[in-house]
Amino acid sequence: MSKVTPLSGFPEYLPRQRLVEQHVLDTIRQVFERHGFSSIETRAVEPLEQMLRKGEIDKEVYVLRRLHAESGEPDAGLGLHFDLTVPLARYVVQNAGHLDFPFRRYQIQKAWRGERPQEGRSREFTQADIDVVGRDTLAFHHDVEVALVMAEVFRTLPCPATVIVVNNRKLAEGFFLGLGATDSSAALRAIDKLDKIGKDKVSDLLVAQAGLTAEAASTCLALAEIRSADTSFVDRVQALGVEHPLLTEGLGELESLIAAACDVMPGAIVADLKIARGLDYYTGTVYETELVGYESVGSICSGGRYDALASDGRTTYPGVGISLGVTRLLAILIGRELVTASRSVPTCVLVAVADEDRRGEASAAAAKLRARGINTEVSPEAAKFGKQIRHADRRGIPYVWFCETDGPHSVKDIRSGDQVAADPGVWLPPEADLNPVVSLSNASVAEPLDPSNR
Amino acid sequence: MSKVTPLSGFPEYLPRQRLVEQHVLDTIRQVFERHGFSSIETRAVEPLEQMLRKGEIDKEVYVLRRLHAESGEPDAGLGLHFDLTVPLARYVVQNAGHLDFPFRRYQIQKAWRGERPQEGRSREFTQADIDVVGRDTLAFHHDVEVALVMAEVFRTLPCPATVIVVNNRKLAEGFFLGLGATDSSAALRAIDKLDKIGKDKVSDLLVAQAGLTAEAASTCLALAEIRSADTSFVDRVQALGVEHPLLTEGLGELESLIAAACDVMPGAIVADLKIARGLDYYTGTVYETELVGYESVGSICSGGRYDALASDGRTTYPGVGISLGVTRLLAILIGRELVTASRSVPTCVLVAVADEDRRGEASAAAAKLRARGINTEVSPEAAKFGKQIRHADRRGIPYVWFCETDGPHSVKDIRSGDQVAADPGVWLPPEADLNPVVSLSNASVAEPLDPSNR
Repeated sequence: MSKVTPLSGFPEYLPRQRLVEQHVLDTIRQVFERHGFSSIETRAVEPLEQMLRKGEIDKEVYVLRRLHAESGEPDAGLGLHFDLTVPLARYVVQNAGHLDFPFRRYQIQKAWRGERPQEGRSREFTQADIDVVGRDTLAFHHDVEVALVMAEVFRTLPCPATVIVVNNRKLAEGFFLGLGATDSSAALRAIDKLDKIGKDKVSDLLVAQAGLTAEAASTCLALAEIRSADTSFVDRVQALGVEHPLLTEGLGELESLIAAACDVMPGAIVADLKIARGLDYYTGTVYETELVGYESVGSICSGGRYDALASDGRTTYPGVGISLGVTRLLAILIGRELVTASRSVPTCVLVAVADEDRRGEASAAAAKLRARGINTEVSPEAAKFGKQIRHADRRGIPYVWFCETDGPHSVKDIRSGDQVAADPGVWLPPEADLNPVVSLSNASVAEPLDPSNR
Repeated sequence: MSKVTPLSGFPEYLPRQRLVEQHVLDTIRQVFERHGFSSIETRAVEPLEQMLRKGEIDKEVYVLRRLHAESGEPDAGLGLHFDLTVPLARYVVQNAGHLDFPFRRYQIQKAWRGERPQEGRSREFTQADIDVVGRDTLAFHHDVEVALVMAEVFRTLPCPATVIVVNNRKLAEGFFLGLGATDSSAALRAIDKLDKIGKDKVSDLLVAQAGLTAEAASTCLALAEIRSADTSFVDRVQALGVEHPLLTEGLGELESLIAAACDVMPGAIVADLKIARGLDYYTGTVYETELVGYESVGSICSGGRYDALASDGRTTYPGVGISLGVTRLLAILIGRELVTASRSVPTCVLVAVADEDRRGEASAAAAKLRARGINTEVSPEAAKFGKQIRHADRRGIPYVWFCETDGPHSVKDIRSGDQVAADPGVWLPPEADLNPVVSLSNASVAEPLDPSNR
């Protein structure tokens, strides 16, 4: 093992960076549970036939094979899941008899796609999803709820400002149909390319593929420019003079979502009528999320409503959900050092060892500190105290403990140099020193630390 | 998706069972951090050439391939890791310049092996590992430490009694060599089969493969019968009259480990001289763990000392570590319903909705409760209150909150039926109701709940 190089697309972190990741994951979990979402985990693999129902995505799946498999083995048809939505649909159908509906679940797991790695796109990545799944029906207020839960996650995390941008497929499709489109899906796909290919080319596509006139195409582009943090978008859409029952329905849904969101967290959730979410099979609300100042990495949190997330032939399970791209977010937070941990280890106290024969005494003091919730380790070596203190300092451990043979123990804050007598059954550090603190740094934007973290 | 069946060897849990799993994982993590171990995660994949260095295990690796891969693609040589030790060795060599030694790391992740599934053996499973890795040297006291940390994990978890059984490769090898063995590895492999094939066949193997006389083989079997919770095993070994410098060294190490462990946690860690750990490349201490009453599932926590865990050609990294088989443990705890959660959701309070027009009011009350750490959801439907209460009851949610239009809000404990006036900015439930409680049940041994949980 003379030379080891990172694998592109498979990010890994150093212990101090991992503390940031853990803080982000813990925060996400806490907010999800605060809102009564239940955790599930699904196996990493799904049958290929399940995963390939969605069409274009198939080329990205990693297929598994046992190294010495014999042909015809059952696991020959398994692949690693590329998202957490396909597994959720399968899990709901498989366990429907054991679940209570509406089923509120969160799922924080890795997924894999064999795509070409680039900033914001890894081959192995962690997603944090919430979905609410109904049986037969699912009330629209859950479309508001999942967006607000994610907005609360972003408000709680140490991270730059975010804006959740929302649109509604019914609004868009109704609008295209009202303008005479012969293929509203083609119109949606064209609008989805706006940022990539620009207005002129989108207009050409709307005419060539969606069956719209040039004038209608220009009205579609006008729709795509509408964005508002309040319900003023409704008047602007109506001013375009297009009518269709689907448009009316979608406009009403989006209005009620933005109105409710404005009440609770003004500015966090914004209507943006160019959001399309490409080929995914959403049927109503769609969400994306901009990380302000880092829009170029793409949406860090996306989702929408599926009227038929899953079905077992007799029963249909509608769902609405939203998925936070944890790895994409961390590529910014950690890769650009926007967020840092105050030390590289969980340890608060290092107990010094005066002599190897007295290691048991140091271990006993450490056990007393741990019993009261203080992360403690014992010095690996009975070296000179100066060396033991440097061992703590190098890793950011704030306190070193000394077991005196005669007289009380003492504890030294190695940042200030202050040393005081202390009893391991009583002493407590200040709350802020107990665990590593993870916080937004004031560092300006920097290049990623480690080329594997992309 | 008309019929979905579980995949054998890929366990999945229902939400209430998942709460048990989360509690187990959280407890393990907390104890590890209490002892100053740093978390790392490694990517799920390793180059095949890394993983196949160990020999016999190769047949169990899952190899990855992109569904539409072109030949010669770089990821053609990747497989899913089958443990967390091979990835640790690679991570240490790759990041040595950024780590402080001795490096104390924990790692809780899934691993995969394409083995035939059976009780205690899954194709996808979670391991929780701690290792201490030195540079050039690593003090023996870490061999004591990692066993004591795991003993503390087991003491903290809701689970049946466990015994960590320990042996030492130097002791065993020195003993075989002192008896004239020509192949001490063959002797070790023979002893490792004792439980499976019995004494007579092991004796035959010791003669045929390790070059021992029948009398010497019988002395080896006498060694394998020695087990003690204190250091009395030392006299019993010496009474067998075998001498070899390696034996003396290993016996001294094991004696100091058991002596130190006895001081801290008597009975938790026991010397057992038949423990061999088969083909793994340990060079000193070896550990296994018996779950008392469930020994037939095999060791639930194993490991040992490697004098050369990793090397980059110039520097050698010795390590000692121990790995808890979380999935194997959960197959017992959850599969046999030994441990249960007090409810199926994290939710403590369900806020009732009197009328859809007043949902905003219910949401506002819920937000106030959440702000003080109370997991709260709002009723999905403005149904009759009786129906809303049943919705809470079915999932074990203990409290239902009512927003009155005139007068104060009130909260009902739906277990007792008691209803009292309450302010959402002030009210707190009893500590025991705040989160689901996970505990050992009094249930006798039962069959697994769900055939997929094996």
